[in-house]
Amino acid sequence: METRTLTARTPADGAQAAGRDIPEATVARLPEYLRALTALAERGIGTCSSDELAAAVNVNSAKLRKDLSYLGSYGTRGVGYDVDYLSYQIAREIGLMQDWPVVIVGIGNLGHALANYAGFGSRGFRVVALLDAAPELVDETVGGLVVRPFDDLEAVVADGPVAIGVIATPAGAAQEVVDRLVAAGITSILNFAPTTLAVPAGVSVRKVDLSIELQILAFHEQRKGSPVVQPLAREASA
Amino acid sequence: METRTLTARTPADGAQAAGRDIPEATVARLPEYLRALTALAERGIGTCSSDELAAAVNVNSAKLRKDLSYLGSYGTRGVGYDVDYLSYQIAREIGLMQDWPVVIVGIGNLGHALANYAGFGSRGFRVVALLDAAPELVDETVGGLVVRPFDDLEAVVADGPVAIGVIATPAGAAQEVVDRLVAAGITSILNFAPTTLAVPAGVSVRKVDLSIELQILAFHEQRKGSPVVQPLAREASA
Repeated sequence: METRTLTARTPADGAQAAGRDIPEATVARLPEYLRALTALAERGIGTCSSDELAAAVNVNSAKLRKDLSYLGSYGTRGVGYDVDYLSYQIAREIGLMQDWPVVIVGIGNLGHALANYAGFGSRGFRVVALLDAAPELVDETVGGLVVRPFDDLEAVVADGPVAIGVIATPAGAAQEVVDRLVAAGITSILNFAPTTLAVPAGVSVRKVDLSIELQILAFHEQRKGSPVVQPLAREASA
Repeated sequence: METRTLTARTPADGAQAAGRDIPEATVARLPEYLRALTALAERGIGTCSSDELAAAVNVNSAKLRKDLSYLGSYGTRGVGYDVDYLSYQIAREIGLMQDWPVVIVGIGNLGHALANYAGFGSRGFRVVALLDAAPELVDETVGGLVVRPFDDLEAVVADGPVAIGVIATPAGAAQEVVDRLVAAGITSILNFAPTTLAVPAGVSVRKVDLSIELQILAFHEQRKGSPVVQPLAREASA
């Protein structure tokens, strides 16, 4: 079985940065900076201050400057950042100069939405296969691709590299699916199934759990509705 | 216009905790603990150690104990945590003892998936309305609800409390939608549109951006493929 999943691993561009430790929170903000820069470029803006860029992504400018310092980007005093060059630096750091073939497993409602999600097509993420275990979904065309049986997974990987597996199955099927993806050599997983997946070391899992996002909102909403009542115990006992 | 969005704000249960500051990272883990505890309860397990619970959510047990200490939960030495009672404490802390009516705006592919998402129905999150600006989507039935025009928003809020607005529109429409939601009194927003929303103070926004999740995975995948080459400069120049 072919277990290497990516062919286009050229250390040339990434090697300089690969040795530095970038905090996970900074990594999570890099795509946001990139999106803001892309919007500026589309408006024909060639340079921006750290204040402007920070405001566009809702962080303070000290944090932005610290984040960009990990990339060796410090801007020019009195001028700011060159929008195109900073975009290039961030895209290179994230790894967007290469192709990221994506397989989606589970083509129910969510899988349909993901297969049609325009954001997947941008930034080098290319959906190369849609897989589902349900015979009634196989051969349906979704987002321009024909749904294939889940058992075709190994054949899909043999046909060409797959960088990222997206799991959009019910929770009960997700562990079996991730085991098969990992066995087929896929080491980056985006999991939409509402369950925690066990994976071997070296496999990255990002989880998107809609009910958890809702619960976090509920926590804050509840606090807004419960103004803190200052205890009056000291006065009462005085 | 009715701007209060929640009627069931009883400080009784939440007030004790509302004054304490719980770190955002802990808040994000509470739903995960709750899900693991629910799974244990379903298997008939009445008590669990911090090690077991920590393993189920992929954190170390010191972090778990610290997280639960914010809730005043310390378990019993040699016995561990009572599964049912800890579930109750977490659910109360998050605010899941009350009803969280949800409105989804934008009933394209993603909105369809969200409307059918079973996780929304659990834990007190109840979809009360589906809204879309496109006339061709209005009157379609999705997930048991009839899609209504977006202009019905104020009427929906007047009909009953809405706690959370979910935005599943294209990026270009999202700011206008969130402005209308906020004007209608909704102060918690789950945003799926790939754009940063400007909201007044006091409004909570959680953003789920699929392309950002993919980019974070790409960053890590790239690093796996770029082993650090130690510079040999010192030897070479010696």
